[in-house]
Amino acid sequence: MRIDIISVVPGLLEGPFSHSILKRAEEKGLATVRVHNLRDYAGGKQKQVDDYAFGGGAGMVMMIEPIAKCIEALKSEREYDEVIYMTPDGKKFDQQMANELSLKENFIILCGHYKGVDERVRLKWITKEISIGDYVLSGGELAAAVVTDAIIRLIPGVLNDESSALTDSFQDGLLAPPVYTRPADYVGMKVPEILMSGHQAKIDTWRFEASVRRTKERRPDLLEGKEI
Amino acid sequence: MRIDIISVVPGLLEGPFSHSILKRAEEKGLATVRVHNLRDYAGGKQKQVDDYAFGGGAGMVMMIEPIAKCIEALKSEREYDEVIYMTPDGKKFDQQMANELSLKENFIILCGHYKGVDERVRLKWITKEISIGDYVLSGGELAAAVVTDAIIRLIPGVLNDESSALTDSFQDGLLAPPVYTRPADYVGMKVPEILMSGHQAKIDTWRFEASVRRTKERRPDLLEGKEI
Repeated sequence: MRIDIISVVPGLLEGPFSHSILKRAEEKGLATVRVHNLRDYAGGKQKQVDDYAFGGGAGMVMMIEPIAKCIEALKSEREYDEVIYMTPDGKKFDQQMANELSLKENFIILCGHYKGVDERVRLKWITKEISIGDYVLSGGELAAAVVTDAIIRLIPGVLNDESSALTDSFQDGLLAPPVYTRPADYVGMKVPEILMSGHQAKIDTWRFEASVRRTKERRPDLLEGKEI
Repeated sequence: MRIDIISVVPGLLEGPFSHSILKRAEEKGLATVRVHNLRDYAGGKQKQVDDYAFGGGAGMVMMIEPIAKCIEALKSEREYDEVIYMTPDGKKFDQQMANELSLKENFIILCGHYKGVDERVRLKWITKEISIGDYVLSGGELAAAVVTDAIIRLIPGVLNDESSALTDSFQDGLLAPPVYTRPADYVGMKVPEILMSGHQAKIDTWRFEASVRRTKERRPDLLEGKEI
Protein backbone atom coordinates (compact mmCIF):
# COMPACT_ATOMS: atom_id res chain seq x y z
CA MET A 1 0.00 0.00 0.00
CA ARG A 2 1.14 3.52 -0.74
CA ILE A 3 -0.42 6.66 0.73
CA ASP A 4 0.52 10.11 -0.58
CA ILE A 5 -0.56 12.92 1.71
CA ILE A 6 -0.73 16.50 0.43
CA SER A 7 -0.40 19.19 3.09
CA VAL A 8 0.53 22.83 3.64
CA VAL A 9 1.96 21.89 7.08
CA PRO A 10 3.95 18.73 6.34
CA GLY A 11 6.00 19.08 9.54
CA LEU A 12 2.87 18.36 11.52
CA LEU A 13 2.97 14.80 10.22
CA GLU A 14 6.60 14.03 11.02
CA GLY A 15 5.96 12.48 14.42
CA PRO A 16 3.01 10.24 13.58
CA PHE A 17 4.77 8.59 10.65
CA SER A 18 8.20 8.08 12.13
CA HIS A 19 7.10 6.18 15.23
CA SER A 20 5.21 3.15 16.32
CA ILE A 21 3.33 0.93 13.91
CA LEU A 22 3.58 3.20 10.89
CA LYS A 23 7.35 3.14 11.10
CA ARG A 24 7.27 -0.65 11.47
CA ALA A 25 4.95 -1.02 8.46
CA GLU A 26 7.38 1.05 6.40
CA GLU A 27 10.41 -0.94 7.58
CA LYS A 28 8.70 -4.22 6.75
CA GLY A 29 7.85 -2.91 3.29
CA LEU A 30 4.12 -3.31 3.94
CA ALA A 31 3.16 0.34 3.53
CA THR A 32 4.75 3.53 2.27
CA VAL A 33 3.56 6.94 3.39
CA ARG A 34 4.87 10.08 1.70
CA VAL A 35 3.97 13.60 2.77
CA HIS A 36 4.10 16.23 0.02
CA ASN A 37 4.50 19.93 0.73
CA LEU A 38 1.88 21.73 -1.31
CA ARG A 39 4.11 24.80 -1.45
CA ASP A 40 6.51 22.86 -3.70
CA TYR A 41 3.79 23.01 -6.36
CA ALA A 42 2.96 26.70 -5.93
CA GLY A 43 3.95 29.29 -8.51
CA GLY A 44 5.71 32.63 -8.07
CA LYS A 45 8.28 33.73 -5.56
CA GLN A 46 5.83 33.74 -2.70
CA LYS A 47 4.83 30.12 -3.20
CA GLN A 48 1.24 31.13 -2.58
CA VAL A 49 -1.15 28.28 -1.77
CA ASP A 50 -4.13 30.18 -0.36
CA ASP A 51 -6.10 33.33 -1.13
CA TYR A 52 -9.13 35.29 0.07
CA ALA A 53 -12.57 33.77 -0.46
CA PHE A 54 -14.70 35.17 -3.26
CA GLY A 55 -17.64 36.86 -1.60
CA GLY A 56 -15.62 37.94 1.43
CA GLY A 57 -15.62 36.66 4.97
CA ALA A 58 -13.04 35.36 7.43
CA GLY A 59 -10.57 32.61 6.61
CA MET A 60 -8.41 31.76 3.62
CA VAL A 61 -9.20 29.23 0.88
CA MET A 62 -6.69 26.77 -0.61
CA MET A 63 -6.12 27.56 -4.29
CA ILE A 64 -6.90 25.12 -7.06
CA GLU A 65 -3.70 25.44 -9.10
CA PRO A 66 -1.01 24.09 -6.72
CA ILE A 67 -3.33 21.20 -5.77
CA ALA A 68 -3.98 20.43 -9.43
CA LYS A 69 -0.24 20.33 -10.16
CA CYS A 70 0.50 18.10 -7.20
CA ILE A 71 -2.31 15.60 -7.88
CA GLU A 72 -1.49 15.44 -11.60
CA ALA A 73 2.22 14.89 -10.84
CA LEU A 74 1.38 11.99 -8.53
CA LYS A 75 -1.12 10.49 -10.97
CA SER A 76 1.48 10.52 -13.73
CA GLU A 77 3.61 8.18 -11.61
CA ARG A 78 1.06 5.52 -10.63
CA GLU A 79 -2.60 4.55 -10.51
CA TYR A 80 -4.61 5.58 -7.45
CA ASP A 81 -7.68 3.82 -6.09
CA GLU A 82 -8.97 6.95 -4.40
CA VAL A 83 -8.23 10.65 -4.10
CA ILE A 84 -9.50 11.41 -0.60
CA TYR A 85 -10.29 14.82 0.87
CA MET A 86 -10.42 15.14 4.65
CA THR A 87 -13.33 17.44 5.54
CA PRO A 88 -15.86 17.70 8.40
CA ASP A 89 -18.73 17.37 5.89
CA GLY A 90 -17.40 14.14 4.42
CA LYS A 91 -18.66 10.59 5.00
CA LYS A 92 -18.09 9.54 8.60
CA PHE A 93 -15.04 7.32 8.99
CA ASP A 94 -15.66 4.08 10.87
CA GLN A 95 -14.12 0.65 11.33
CA GLN A 96 -15.93 -0.77 8.32
CA MET A 97 -14.53 1.96 6.07
CA ALA A 98 -11.08 1.29 7.56
CA ASN A 99 -11.45 -2.41 6.73
CA GLU A 100 -12.48 -1.63 3.14
CA LEU A 101 -9.67 0.87 2.56
CA SER A 102 -7.09 -1.53 4.03
CA LEU A 103 -7.73 -3.85 1.07
CA LYS A 104 -6.86 -1.22 -1.55
CA GLU A 105 -3.49 -0.29 -3.00
CA ASN A 106 -2.79 3.42 -3.49
CA PHE A 107 -4.41 6.58 -2.20
CA ILE A 108 -3.88 10.28 -2.28
CA ILE A 109 -5.11 12.12 0.82
CA LEU A 110 -5.54 15.88 0.49
CA CYS A 111 -5.56 17.73 3.80
CA GLY A 112 -7.78 20.77 3.97
CA HIS A 113 -6.49 23.76 5.94
CA TYR A 114 -7.76 27.26 6.65
CA LYS A 115 -11.39 27.50 5.41
CA GLY A 116 -10.99 24.50 3.10
CA VAL A 117 -10.17 23.96 -0.57
CA ASP A 118 -11.69 25.69 -3.57
CA GLU A 119 -14.91 23.79 -4.32
CA ARG A 120 -13.75 23.04 -7.87
CA VAL A 121 -10.96 20.82 -6.50
CA ARG A 122 -13.60 18.66 -4.89
CA LEU A 123 -15.67 18.48 -8.06
CA LYS A 124 -12.78 17.67 -10.37
CA TRP A 125 -10.38 15.37 -8.50
CA ILE A 126 -11.80 14.09 -5.26
CA THR A 127 -13.32 10.57 -5.33
CA LYS A 128 -14.04 10.23 -1.60
CA GLU A 129 -14.64 12.79 1.14
CA ILE A 130 -14.01 11.56 4.68
CA SER A 131 -14.70 13.06 8.10
CA ILE A 132 -13.23 11.51 11.23
CA GLY A 133 -15.99 13.02 13.41
CA ASP A 134 -18.34 15.93 14.08
CA TYR A 135 -15.74 18.47 15.13
CA VAL A 136 -13.53 21.00 13.41
CA LEU A 137 -9.73 20.79 13.45
CA SER A 138 -7.23 23.42 12.40
CA GLY A 139 -6.44 21.25 9.39
CA GLY A 140 -6.93 17.85 7.81
CA GLU A 141 -3.45 16.67 8.79
CA LEU A 142 -4.37 14.98 12.06
CA ALA A 143 -7.45 13.51 10.39
CA ALA A 144 -5.25 12.09 7.62
CA ALA A 145 -2.93 10.63 10.25
CA VAL A 146 -5.88 9.01 12.03
CA VAL A 147 -7.18 7.41 8.82
CA THR A 148 -3.70 6.26 7.81
CA ASP A 149 -3.07 4.70 11.22
CA ALA A 150 -6.46 2.96 11.33
CA ILE A 151 -5.93 1.48 7.86
CA ILE A 152 -2.28 0.47 8.05
CA ARG A 153 -2.60 -1.41 11.34
CA LEU A 154 -5.09 -3.74 9.61
CA ILE A 155 -2.61 -4.85 6.94
CA PRO A 156 -1.57 -8.42 7.82
CA GLY A 157 1.90 -8.46 9.34
CA VAL A 158 1.92 -4.87 10.61
CA LEU A 159 0.84 -5.63 14.18
CA ASN A 160 3.18 -7.97 16.03
CA ASP A 161 0.37 -10.22 17.05
CA GLU A 162 -2.11 -10.48 14.23
CA SER A 163 -4.97 -11.80 16.26
CA SER A 164 -4.79 -8.64 18.36
CA ALA A 165 -6.67 -6.44 15.88
CA LEU A 166 -9.49 -8.97 15.59
CA THR A 167 -10.41 -8.60 19.27
CA ASP A 168 -10.54 -4.79 19.09
CA SER A 169 -13.67 -2.83 19.80
CA PHE A 170 -16.06 -2.71 16.79
CA GLN A 171 -14.56 -5.66 14.89
CA ASP A 172 -17.32 -7.95 16.15
CA GLY A 173 -19.83 -5.13 16.64
CA LEU A 174 -19.18 -5.03 20.39
CA LEU A 175 -17.01 -2.90 22.64
CA ALA A 176 -13.98 -4.67 24.07
CA PRO A 177 -14.22 -6.14 27.61
CA PRO A 178 -12.21 -4.69 30.53
CA VAL A 179 -8.57 -5.81 30.69
CA TYR A 180 -6.30 -6.32 33.70
CA THR A 181 -2.65 -7.04 34.29
CA ARG A 182 -0.31 -7.43 37.27
CA PRO A 183 -0.42 -6.80 40.17
CA ALA A 184 -3.49 -8.90 41.02
CA ASP A 185 -4.09 -6.66 44.04
CA TYR A 186 -3.37 -2.94 43.81
CA VAL A 187 -3.94 -1.31 47.21
CA GLY A 188 -7.09 -3.38 47.65
CA MET A 189 -8.35 -3.15 44.08
CA LYS A 190 -8.49 -6.72 42.87
CA VAL A 191 -8.59 -8.38 39.48
CA PRO A 192 -11.76 -10.48 38.95
CA GLU A 193 -10.94 -14.00 40.18
CA ILE A 194 -12.27 -15.73 37.10
CA LEU A 195 -9.46 -14.17 35.00
CA MET A 196 -6.87 -15.91 37.17
CA SER A 197 -8.66 -19.26 37.25
CA GLY A 198 -6.94 -20.71 34.19
CA HIS A 199 -10.33 -21.98 32.99
CA GLN A 200 -10.26 -20.63 29.44
CA ALA A 201 -13.87 -21.44 28.50
CA LYS A 202 -15.19 -19.64 31.58
CA ILE A 203 -12.87 -16.71 30.91
CA ASP A 204 -14.12 -16.46 27.32
CA THR A 205 -17.73 -16.46 28.53
CA TRP A 206 -16.95 -13.79 31.15
CA ARG A 207 -15.31 -11.61 28.51
CA PHE A 208 -18.16 -12.00 26.05
CA GLU A 209 -20.70 -11.13 28.73
CA ALA A 210 -18.62 -8.15 29.85
CA SER A 211 -18.43 -6.95 26.23
CA VAL A 212 -22.18 -7.20 25.81
CA ARG A 213 -22.80 -5.45 29.14
CA ARG A 214 -20.42 -2.61 28.29
CA THR A 215 -21.96 -2.22 24.84
CA LYS A 216 -25.49 -2.13 26.32
CA GLU A 217 -24.46 0.52 28.83
CA ARG A 218 -22.39 2.73 26.58
CA ARG A 219 -23.42 2.10 22.99
CA PRO A 220 -26.84 0.45 22.75
CA ASP A 221 -26.96 1.73 19.14
CA LEU A 222 -24.37 -0.92 18.18
CA LEU A 223 -26.74 -3.70 19.27
CA GLU A 224 -29.79 -2.58 17.30
CA GLY A 225 -31.13 -5.36 15.09
CA LYS A 226 -28.79 -7.93 16.68
CA GLU A 227 -29.65 -11.00 18.68
CA ILE A 228 -27.29 -11.67 21.55
CA MET B 1 -5.06 26.33 29.64
CA ARG B 2 -2.63 23.52 30.35
CA ILE B 3 -2.87 20.01 28.91
CA ASP B 4 -0.64 17.20 30.19
CA ILE B 5 -0.57 14.18 27.92
CA ILE B 6 0.68 10.83 29.20
CA SER B 7 1.98 8.47 26.52
CA VAL B 8 4.27 5.48 25.94
CA VAL B 9 5.15 6.88 22.48
CA PRO B 10 5.76 10.57 23.19
CA GLY B 11 7.73 11.04 19.95
CA LEU B 12 4.54 10.47 18.03
CA LEU B 13 3.26 13.80 19.35
CA GLU B 14 6.29 15.92 18.49
CA GLY B 15 5.04 17.09 15.09
CA PRO B 16 1.46 17.98 16.00
CA PHE B 17 2.49 20.20 18.91
CA SER B 18 5.44 22.01 17.36
CA HIS B 19 3.62 23.31 14.27
CA SER B 20 0.67 25.38 13.24
CA ILE B 21 -1.87 26.69 15.69
CA LEU B 22 -0.71 24.70 18.70
CA LYS B 23 2.74 26.23 18.42
CA ARG B 24 1.19 29.68 18.05
CA ALA B 25 -1.04 29.13 21.10
CA GLU B 26 2.03 28.19 23.13
CA GLU B 27 4.03 31.18 21.89
CA LYS B 28 1.20 33.56 22.76
CA GLY B 29 0.97 32.03 26.24
CA LEU B 30 -2.63 30.94 25.65
CA ALA B 31 -2.09 27.21 26.06
CA THR B 32 0.64 24.91 27.29
CA VAL B 33 0.85 21.29 26.19
CA ARG B 34 3.31 18.92 27.85
CA VAL B 35 3.84 15.33 26.79
CA HIS B 36 5.04 12.96 29.51
CA ASN B 37 6.83 9.72 28.79
CA LEU B 38 5.14 7.04 30.88
CA ARG B 39 8.40 5.10 30.96
CA ASP B 40 9.90 7.82 33.17
CA TYR B 41 7.50 6.63 35.88
CA ALA B 42 8.17 2.91 35.46
CA GLY B 43 10.13 0.91 38.02
CA GLY B 44 13.04 -1.48 37.55
CA LYS B 45 15.80 -1.51 35.00
CA GLN B 46 13.50 -2.47 32.18
CA LYS B 47 11.18 0.47 32.69
CA GLN B 48 8.25 -1.86 32.12
CA VAL B 49 4.92 -0.17 31.36
CA ASP B 50 2.89 -3.09 30.01
CA ASP B 51 2.34 -6.74 30.81
CA TYR B 52 0.29 -9.74 29.65
CA ALA B 53 -3.46 -9.69 30.25
CA PHE B 54 -4.83 -11.79 33.09
CA GLY B 55 -6.91 -14.50 31.49
CA GLY B 56 -4.67 -14.74 28.41
CA GLY B 57 -5.23 -13.55 24.87
CA ALA B 58 -3.42 -11.38 22.36
CA GLY B 59 -2.21 -7.87 23.15
CA MET B 60 -0.50 -6.23 26.10
CA VAL B 61 -2.16 -4.20 28.86
CA MET B 62 -0.80 -0.94 30.31
CA MET B 63 0.11 -1.42 33.98
CA ILE B 64 -1.52 0.53 36.77
CA GLU B 65 1.60 1.50 38.77
CA PRO B 66 3.48 3.78 36.32
CA ILE B 67 0.22 5.53 35.42
CA ALA B 68 -0.62 6.00 39.11
CA LYS B 69 2.80 7.55 39.77
CA CYS B 70 2.55 9.88 36.78
CA ILE B 71 -0.98 11.08 37.53
CA GLU B 72 -0.23 11.57 41.24
CA ALA B 73 2.95 13.52 40.41
CA LEU B 74 1.01 15.85 38.12
CA LYS B 75 -1.83 16.26 40.61
CA SER B 76 0.62 17.27 43.33
CA GLU B 77 1.63 20.24 41.17
CA ARG B 78 -1.75 21.69 40.24
CA GLU B 79 -5.52 21.15 40.18
CA TYR B 80 -7.01 19.41 37.15
CA ASP B 81 -10.55 19.82 35.86
CA GLU B 82 -10.56 16.42 34.19
CA VAL B 83 -8.43 13.31 33.86
CA ILE B 84 -9.36 12.10 30.40
CA TYR B 85 -8.79 8.64 28.94
CA MET B 86 -8.85 8.28 25.15
CA THR B 87 -10.65 5.02 24.31
CA PRO B 88 -12.92 3.78 21.50
CA ASP B 89 -15.65 2.97 24.04
CA GLY B 90 -15.67 6.48 25.52
CA LYS B 91 -18.21 9.26 24.96
CA LYS B 92 -18.15 10.43 21.35
CA PHE B 93 -16.23 13.66 20.91
CA ASP B 94 -18.11 16.39 19.05
CA GLN B 95 -18.01 20.15 18.58
CA GLN B 96 -20.18 20.76 21.63
CA MET B 97 -17.79 18.81 23.85
CA ALA B 98 -14.90 20.76 22.29
CA ASN B 99 -16.68 24.03 23.14
CA GLU B 100 -17.26 22.92 26.74
CA LEU B 101 -13.69 21.73 27.26
CA SER B 102 -12.28 24.93 25.76
CA LEU B 103 -13.71 26.84 28.73
CA LYS B 104 -11.84 24.77 31.34
CA GLU B 105 -8.34 25.22 32.71
CA ASN B 106 -6.24 22.09 33.16
CA PHE B 107 -6.53 18.53 31.89
CA ILE B 108 -4.60 15.33 31.97
CA ILE B 109 -5.07 13.15 28.88
CA LEU B 110 -4.00 9.52 29.22
CA CYS B 111 -3.34 7.80 25.90
CA GLY B 112 -4.20 4.13 25.77
CA HIS B 113 -1.89 1.90 23.76
CA TYR B 114 -1.71 -1.84 23.07
CA LYS B 115 -4.92 -3.49 24.38
CA GLY B 116 -5.70 -0.56 26.69
CA VAL B 117 -5.08 0.29 30.34
CA ASP B 118 -5.75 -1.88 33.36
CA GLU B 119 -9.44 -1.38 34.17
CA ARG B 120 -8.61 -0.23 37.70
CA VAL B 121 -6.93 2.91 36.29
CA ARG B 122 -10.24 3.85 34.72
CA LEU B 123 -12.15 3.21 37.94
CA LYS B 124 -9.77 5.11 40.21
CA TRP B 125 -8.50 8.15 38.30
CA ILE B 126 -10.36 8.76 35.06
CA THR B 127 -13.12 11.39 35.18
CA LYS B 128 -13.99 11.43 31.47
CA GLU B 129 -13.59 8.81 28.73
CA ILE B 130 -13.55 10.17 25.20
CA SER B 131 -13.67 8.52 21.78
CA ILE B 132 -12.97 10.50 18.63
CA GLY B 133 -14.95 8.03 16.50
CA ASP B 134 -15.99 4.42 15.86
CA TYR B 135 -12.62 3.10 14.76
CA VAL B 136 -9.56 1.64 16.42
CA LEU B 137 -6.15 3.32 16.32
CA SER B 138 -2.81 1.88 17.31
CA GLY B 139 -2.87 4.19 20.32
CA GLY B 140 -4.62 7.13 21.91
CA GLU B 141 -1.89 9.59 20.88
CA LEU B 142 -3.47 10.76 17.63
CA ALA B 143 -6.84 10.92 19.36
CA ALA B 144 -5.32 13.10 22.10
CA ALA B 145 -3.80 15.34 19.42
CA VAL B 146 -7.19 15.67 17.72
CA VAL B 147 -8.95 16.64 20.96
CA THR B 148 -6.17 19.07 21.91
CA ASP B 149 -6.26 20.75 18.49
CA ALA B 150 -10.06 21.02 18.44
CA ILE B 151 -10.09 22.60 21.91
CA ILE B 152 -7.13 24.95 21.65
CA ARG B 153 -8.21 26.54 18.37
CA LEU B 154 -11.37 27.72 20.16
CA ILE B 155 -9.48 29.73 22.78
CA PRO B 156 -9.92 33.41 21.89
CA GLY B 157 -6.77 34.80 20.29
CA VAL B 158 -5.38 31.48 19.04
CA LEU B 159 -6.73 31.75 15.50
CA ASN B 160 -5.51 34.82 13.63
CA ASP B 161 -9.01 35.76 12.66
CA GLU B 162 -11.34 35.04 15.51
CA SER B 163 -14.51 35.13 13.52
CA SER B 164 -13.14 32.30 11.42
CA ALA B 165 -13.98 29.55 13.92
CA LEU B 166 -17.55 30.78 14.26
CA THR B 167 -18.33 30.07 10.61
CA ASP B 168 -16.97 26.51 10.77
CA SER B 169 -19.11 23.48 10.12
CA PHE B 170 -21.21 22.44 13.17
CA GLN B 171 -20.93 25.74 15.06
CA ASP B 172 -24.40 26.75 13.85
CA GLY B 173 -25.60 23.18 13.40
CA LEU B 174 -25.04 23.35 9.63
CA LEU B 175 -22.25 22.24 7.34
CA ALA B 176 -20.17 25.05 5.88
CA PRO B 177 -21.03 26.29 2.34
CA PRO B 178 -18.67 25.74 -0.61
CA VAL B 179 -15.77 28.21 -0.82
CA TYR B 180 -13.93 29.56 -3.87
CA THR B 181 -10.84 31.64 -4.51
CA ARG B 182 -8.91 32.92 -7.53
CA PRO B 183 -8.82 32.28 -10.44
CA ALA B 184 -12.47 33.01 -11.23
CA ASP B 185 -12.21 30.71 -14.24
CA TYR B 186 -10.09 27.55 -14.04
CA VAL B 187 -10.03 25.82 -17.44
CA GLY B 188 -13.72 26.50 -17.83
CA MET B 189 -14.74 25.80 -14.22
CA LYS B 190 -16.24 29.06 -13.01
CA VAL B 191 -16.93 30.54 -9.60
CA PRO B 192 -20.66 31.23 -9.00
CA GLU B 193 -21.30 34.79 -10.24
CA ILE B 194 -23.15 35.86 -7.13
CA LEU B 195 -19.93 35.53 -5.08
CA MET B 196 -18.24 38.14 -7.29
CA SER B 197 -21.21 40.52 -7.31
CA GLY B 198 -20.14 42.54 -4.29
CA HIS B 199 -23.73 42.39 -3.03
CA GLN B 200 -23.10 41.16 0.53
CA ALA B 201 -26.71 40.52 1.53
CA LYS B 202 -27.28 38.33 -1.53
CA ILE B 203 -23.99 36.54 -0.92
CA ASP B 204 -24.97 35.83 2.68
CA THR B 205 -28.32 34.43 1.53
CA TRP B 206 -26.61 32.27 -1.12
CA ARG B 207 -24.18 30.91 1.50
CA PHE B 208 -26.92 30.15 4.00
CA GLU B 209 -28.97 28.35 1.36
CA ALA B 210 -25.91 26.43 0.18
CA SER B 211 -25.20 25.41 3.80
CA VAL B 212 -28.75 24.17 4.29
CA ARG B 213 -28.68 22.31 0.95
CA ARG B 214 -25.38 20.63 1.74
CA THR B 215 -26.57 19.68 5.22
CA LYS B 216 -29.81 18.20 3.82
CA GLU B 217 -27.87 16.16 1.27
CA ARG B 218 -25.07 14.94 3.47
CA ARG B 219 -26.19 15.13 7.08
CA PRO B 220 -29.98 15.31 7.37
CA ASP B 221 -29.54 14.09 10.96
CA LEU B 222 -28.17 17.53 11.91
CA LEU B 223 -31.46 19.16 10.86
CA GLU B 224 -33.81 16.92 12.86
CA GLY B 225 -36.10 18.96 15.11
CA LYS B 226 -34.97 22.22 13.51
CA GLU B 227 -37.00 24.72 11.55
CA ILE B 228 -35.16 26.27 8.63
